[in-house]
Amino acid sequence: MADRITGILTPNITPVDAAGRIDEERLRGYVDWLIDRGVDGIYPNGSTGEFVRFTAEERRRIVQIVVEQADGRVPVLAGAAEANVKATIEACNAYGDMGVRAVAIVAPFYYRLTSEGVYAYFREIAEHVSVDVTLYNIPLFASPIDVETVIRLASEFPRVIGIKDSSGDLPNMMRMISAIRPMRDDFSFLTGWDAALAPMLIAGADGGTNATSGVVPELTRAVHRNVITGNHQEAMRLQYQLLPLFDAMISLGEFPEGFRAGARSRGWNLGPGRVPLSEQQRDAVARTQREIDALVSEVAGLDESVALPPETIEQIVQRVMRQLGSP
Amino acid sequence: MADRITGILTPNITPVDAAGRIDEERLRGYVDWLIDRGVDGIYPNGSTGEFVRFTAEERRRIVQIVVEQADGRVPVLAGAAEANVKATIEACNAYGDMGVRAVAIVAPFYYRLTSEGVYAYFREIAEHVSVDVTLYNIPLFASPIDVETVIRLASEFPRVIGIKDSSGDLPNMMRMISAIRPMRDDFSFLTGWDAALAPMLIAGADGGTNATSGVVPELTRAVHRNVITGNHQEAMRLQYQLLPLFDAMISLGEFPEGFRAGARSRGWNLGPGRVPLSEQQRDAVARTQREIDALVSEVAGLDESVALPPETIEQIVQRVMRQLGSP
Amino acid sequence: MADRITGILTPNITPVDAAGRIDEERLRGYVDWLIDRGVDGIYPNGSTGEFVRFTAEERRRIVQIVVEQADGRVPVLAGAAEANVKATIEACNAYGDMGVRAVAIVAPFYYRLTSEGVYAYFREIAEHVSVDVTLYNIPLFASPIDVETVIRLASEFPRVIGIKDSSGDLPNMMRMISAIRPMRDDFSFLTGWDAALAPMLIAGADGGTNATSGVVPELTRAVHRNVITGNHQEAMRLQYQLLPLFDAMISLGEFPEGFRAGARSRGWNLGPGRVPLSEQQRDAVARTQREIDALVSEVAGLDESVALPPETIEQIVQRVMRQLGSP
Amino acid sequence: MADRITGILTPNITPVDAAGRIDEERLRGYVDWLIDRGVDGIYPNGSTGEFVRFTAEERRRIVQIVVEQADGRVPVLAGAAEANVKATIEACNAYGDMGVRAVAIVAPFYYRLTSEGVYAYFREIAEHVSVDVTLYNIPLFASPIDVETVIRLASEFPRVIGIKDSSGDLPNMMRMISAIRPMRDDFSFLTGWDAALAPMLIAGADGGTNATSGVVPELTRAVHRNVITGNHQEAMRLQYQLLPLFDAMISLGEFPEGFRAGARSRGWNLGPGRVPLSEQQRDAVARTQREIDALVSEVAGLDESVALPPETIEQIVQRVMRQLGSP
Repeated sequence: MADRITGILTPNITPVDAAGRIDEERLRGYVDWLIDRGVDGIYPNGSTGEFVRFTAEERRRIVQIVVEQADGRVPVLAGAAEANVKATIEACNAYGDMGVRAVAIVAPFYYRLTSEGVYAYFREIAEHVSVDVTLYNIPLFASPIDVETVIRLASEFPRVIGIKDSSGDLPNMMRMISAIRPMRDDFSFLTGWDAALAPMLIAGADGGTNATSGVVPELTRAVHRNVITGNHQEAMRLQYQLLPLFDAMISLGEFPEGFRAGARSRGWNLGPGRVPLSEQQRDAVARTQREIDALVSEVAGLDESVALPPETIEQIVQRVMRQLGSP
Repeated sequence: MADRITGILTPNITPVDAAGRIDEERLRGYVDWLIDRGVDGIYPNGSTGEFVRFTAEERRRIVQIVVEQADGRVPVLAGAAEANVKATIEACNAYGDMGVRAVAIVAPFYYRLTSEGVYAYFREIAEHVSVDVTLYNIPLFASPIDVETVIRLASEFPRVIGIKDSSGDLPNMMRMISAIRPMRDDFSFLTGWDAALAPMLIAGADGGTNATSGVVPELTRAVHRNVITGNHQEAMRLQYQLLPLFDAMISLGEFPEGFRAGARSRGWNLGPGRVPLSEQQRDAVARTQREIDALVSEVAGLDESVALPPETIEQIVQRVMRQLGSP
Repeated sequence: MADRITGILTPNITPVDAAGRIDEERLRGYVDWLIDRGVDGIYPNGSTGEFVRFTAEERRRIVQIVVEQADGRVPVLAGAAEANVKATIEACNAYGDMGVRAVAIVAPFYYRLTSEGVYAYFREIAEHVSVDVTLYNIPLFASPIDVETVIRLASEFPRVIGIKDSSGDLPNMMRMISAIRPMRDDFSFLTGWDAALAPMLIAGADGGTNATSGVVPELTRAVHRNVITGNHQEAMRLQYQLLPLFDAMISLGEFPEGFRAGARSRGWNLGPGRVPLSEQQRDAVARTQREIDALVSEVAGLDESVALPPETIEQIVQRVMRQLGSP
Repeated sequence: MADRITGILTPNITPVDAAGRIDEERLRGYVDWLIDRGVDGIYPNGSTGEFVRFTAEERRRIVQIVVEQADGRVPVLAGAAEANVKATIEACNAYGDMGVRAVAIVAPFYYRLTSEGVYAYFREIAEHVSVDVTLYNIPLFASPIDVETVIRLASEFPRVIGIKDSSGDLPNMMRMISAIRPMRDDFSFLTGWDAALAPMLIAGADGGTNATSGVVPELTRAVHRNVITGNHQEAMRLQYQLLPLFDAMISLGEFPEGFRAGARSRGWNLGPGRVPLSEQQRDAVARTQREIDALVSEVAGLDESVALPPETIEQIVQRVMRQLGSP
């Protein structure tokens, strides 16, 4: 039995070039940068990676690149959700063959399925894949996987080896841990809600898949390491630093634009994203860039690369507008 | 300028065979049956057609078949929503080349976009397609297209020629009609909420895209014809017949299973759908089939084909279980 | 068996004087004005009457004044909701003794009760009152009374003689009519959602309790009379006039401030209300007064009293600010 | 400047006798019992105390009794919410004269006020009371007091000395602490969401007002004491004990019936409550009593009084049914 997944995994933004294609070179560089800064895993094709905005072929290519580049240094957790259960199973097995540690599968979206439907969906997958599966609960975007269904799936299917929960519901996390941990030592509880990362870890979660770790991996790593070494107060102090940065990034324009802006603060221009923005939205991104730059540079424990050379607001605006493809 | 779209268009279920592939022959037969019973248009790849559960290639094939089979007898409104705006534009133009009257485009789903983001998305499309576009608002499943955004898009883009609104919000329908009708005589207001079809038409909507019309096209046609000839009371009487049938179908299992059951009541076995069902769900479908059979056969004005030969409940259950692929 | 309640009943604003006390004289004058303009009933202590912001003693006084002043010209439907079921029953019986046609009782609020709890609450009342009871469903503010519970109560308790539904859910109204009308000819279906008044009446509702009727009683009366005489198109035309006025009033500041502003447009200064407003809110009310004046005066079929003498915006602002008690 | 409020305060159930009147003797005994078991304060007329189901006179009497009985041993935080702002201010001042440490005021309910309206309401109070005020945020039942409004009120009014937050939103608690603590050392952050008590305290909250403390005051006290002495892991272990008990009590029938059942497990029969129950609900309470008894007795660190003499289920059912006033 494999060790359970722990620590902070980065749901990476998918870099695209000016023509809107996957920017393979930049993706490889970004993966290296993240691993160098201590992330415990890479999670391509998550919500932050805009998986729904890429084609099935592109999604496979993205996983292939990340697995190659990680090259065993850290595990890869591959987001896998295709048009239907058959296609999803095929993708899972393809990713397994590529060498991912596990796949993470969101419940069906668009339609809101009942608990029974969600159960039947994951059962079908769990019975037909040759790779470990992590459930991905994100009720804001997809059919919710309720606590009872997680417990039911964990009880019945050894292939289901974890839950990535982005609901932010701490008592629900505790309810799941309480019911599943005694029977499944290999089951991993990961939080996707950065705003409660430290409290979730203190409550017993094994780790997190946090978009913020794609911007300040040093900080999310420090939160995790402080919790596991028992320094809860230091972890909470860092959480108080993380929160305003997360708030600024999550509230900027369409998700994940704010995290793309955060990556720019670290010197990573990951491209324009795949959702059109209005002029008003482009202006908002440009205006907020400096605020995010400041929040990023304030974060303690970061190396000097954070410190940005002084720029006028006008220069920043121009830089961003160019990148966003504005005329 | 083309006439505006009016009447009842059927968002058809996509028939699949036992292997889960598009059942082309049955789809052609079903299209003929619907047209023979008086529907005013066919709407492939709507929510009822489970568009998200088919691949991009399958979606194109479905539209191709429906356009060929309709063969100009009624207009085709093709659902068009691909992974991203670029792919969606390409699909729109392909469907235009095939000869559809217009495309219907749902707002981005999974992520919940802001009004600005929804506007920017449809602007990008409206500026790059060579086919008429109908907005598709279904806030339960996708980012909402709010009233102001519909008005904004209708004001700016002649290519946007209608709204299909499945919110069921009658005052909002009136707000849109009130603001857009005076400036856009070609703009079409269609309701996708069958439970309020007659009231929506009486309030000025031009028609509907109603899953119920795939089961009892005679009834939805009669509702529409009675409203346009001023027989509101008769239209409301029929609406009171339609409502319990709609309620039974919409509440059965995962959408659109109940409408699939309704089609079975008319003799159309459209296959098992593409979402796995649990045993409990299969049993529920089997148990409810007879109730839906009864509701369908009660509907006034239907020809004798509705009257089903007597069957024991056991026989019905077995028939359904076989079709659902249960062991 | 008494005739069932029909037509448009006005949930009247409760006038208060500068000291915040019930303005008895103005309330009597307002009741006369409403009856003179054709409302079919008066409904004191509704949500528009801010019943929760008055004391138990004040609520009784308000009903007493309205009953006296109506003096049998139109029926009175008295809102009755006290701290607990015992006090509510006592209030109901006191109102019955005063001569109200019926009481209207909102489901318990603050706590959200289950359907069973809502049933038990109304059962307790229905078994202990000597006055007819109308259920008041307003899920935005109070525990919802779901369709099944309405049907259950209508089936079991002859004292329950109607439902005032402010949910705005037209199919639910049809579901209730469909289930209850065949067994209860005396049961009254009233809508409290002005934005759908005409469609609700066309669908079979008996009438409405509409805040808008406190501002433009001629218009809401005309909507109702046109529906019952079969002039649905004229009723819908008037509904299209009513909607923007309703929208402007419902969206202004805290409810029911917009309707208070509407009454001012008709010459009725009903006082400052009982909820404190911030400067920003006072300014918004003052700024919007002229817009509401204009909408009120645009309404067709209103007598000349609507036409207001020209005033500068400054004068209007000053008038409103004085009334609102601003320094 | 008074010390800020800290620790666990009990929002006590209000005992009533068989006739439904306040059971003064039992209330006094219950207050003694709670203080003896280490609660840090008593909070009469909270949601658990069913404040809305008592009359204004009864609410004053309840506070009077609790203040007298506490007799300075622990501070009293009195829930104060009357029909309108004027009456609320009068109640606040009356409670101040009685000797309460502070009042806790819920935002206006029934109507959902805007942020501006909530601000104006609390400003009016803060400017006119002679007693310290705690804001009470419970968005499930009353108008929400959003984070910005809490910060605005804390900045402007020294009389506002705390927030009791029952939203359960841990990041929002951190946002408030982060903004207010630096400028207001006397400001108290209390959580009312028992399911997250330990995490909230670890995140920096000063204490809690927790219904669970009325049932197992030893346990909630232990959670709090362990956090302040830095034993986070022990606090979390106890939180894992608290959670299933809280879940069982919160989900039983109408709130606060489950907590009343919990008190029965400790030997406190606090009477039937003031909301009618259906037979189905009475049966559910009776059936669940033994489960709650078991959960209460499992809680570690409780003295022997928890151990109940063996009873047959039938005896328990009869005991509960008698108390609930069933025939």
